[in-house]
Amino acid sequence: MSHITVDPTKPGIIGLFAFRPETAKPLGELVETLLRGPSSLTTGERELIGAVVSKENDCYFCAEAHGAFSAAQIEGGAETVAAAKKDITSAPISDKLRALLKVALATRESGHSVTSALIDNAKAAGASEADIHDTVLIASLFSLFNRYVDGLATDAPDQPEWYAGAAQALVAGGYAAISGAAQAEAQAA
Amino acid sequence: MSHITVDPTKPGIIGLFAFRPETAKPLGELVETLLRGPSSLTTGERELIGAVVSKENDCYFCAEAHGAFSAAQIEGGAETVAAAKKDITSAPISDKLRALLKVALATRESGHSVTSALIDNAKAAGASEADIHDTVLIASLFSLFNRYVDGLATDAPDQPEWYAGAAQALVAGGYAAISGAAQAEAQAA
Repeated sequence: MSHITVDPTKPGIIGLFAFRPETAKPLGELVETLLRGPSSLTTGERELIGAVVSKENDCYFCAEAHGAFSAAQIEGGAETVAAAKKDITSAPISDKLRALLKVALATRESGHSVTSALIDNAKAAGASEADIHDTVLIASLFSLFNRYVDGLATDAPDQPEWYAGAAQALVAGGYAAISGAAQAEAQAA
Repeated sequence: MSHITVDPTKPGIIGLFAFRPETAKPLGELVETLLRGPSSLTTGERELIGAVVSKENDCYFCAEAHGAFSAAQIEGGAETVAAAKKDITSAPISDKLRALLKVALATRESGHSVTSALIDNAKAAGASEADIHDTVLIASLFSLFNRYVDGLATDAPDQPEWYAGAAQALVAGGYAAISGAAQAEAQAA
């Protein structure tokens, strides 16, 4: 049971967005810009960074949701996501994405864990400064999301179908189709 | 030296906001809403939560900046901030804020560290569900900020005067006076 009173039909961060629409708005805009806006990384690759960080933080809701979001949009689909969640060193992904995932996992641990060697490695694999910036910010954003979702003890659906359905809505309408709908309902209530 | 090329006259997160105005905008709106919008907690109290989390994450820039921002707005000023950064159990703050700081420090560690006992303790000290929500989200947001600032190895000014000056600008004009100015310059460049 969650630590605060949220709509039981809105699991994970969706209930929190409805609880506090004022903070949901900029959070929704941030995730839409960072994961779906212009970038040299595909949306599926950026969702994978979020899924891998969430898995390492043991945030079930975020790891399942963003794993499904990545699977729906990345080359190799669910198999690529499962492999990366298990071990980034052997997953069937580009060397650039692998190097950026190492930067993301270091960021997850602490900003101080991101060494110049990890950055040089990413640059050698073809990452631009924008890619490095966005990777550190994505890992930082999921450091926020994971704590927000689990720190308030929100519920997470057990059924893979729930996450697959959310992925369909996301691919069709972006984060506004998920977070925006929750906000609009809360404001109309 | 920072891991990406930022304007050397813009330390800490200010240079990152100028590097990527698209993500600076929602981040600026989020921090303005959460730390300076309507709340039962004063702005100085909310800044203190950010400063204490940043201190614990060893993020010098954020701990100094938000410490100065709290000092400029909290009862007891810099002495209260220094005492809370040293030890929240003995700092001259309300029992409610003390209980919420415990929730914040647990959130900093992991969402899973926020126990029902910590939440019950905060409620017994007078915290509302909105206070608990906002405290968890503030601690989560500083988990983002600290990783963003240190993960990209940004520079931090040594002089306390720099942070005091930033605090004056913040009190007068809100976060737009800090982050917004950086964005406007970047967009005009």
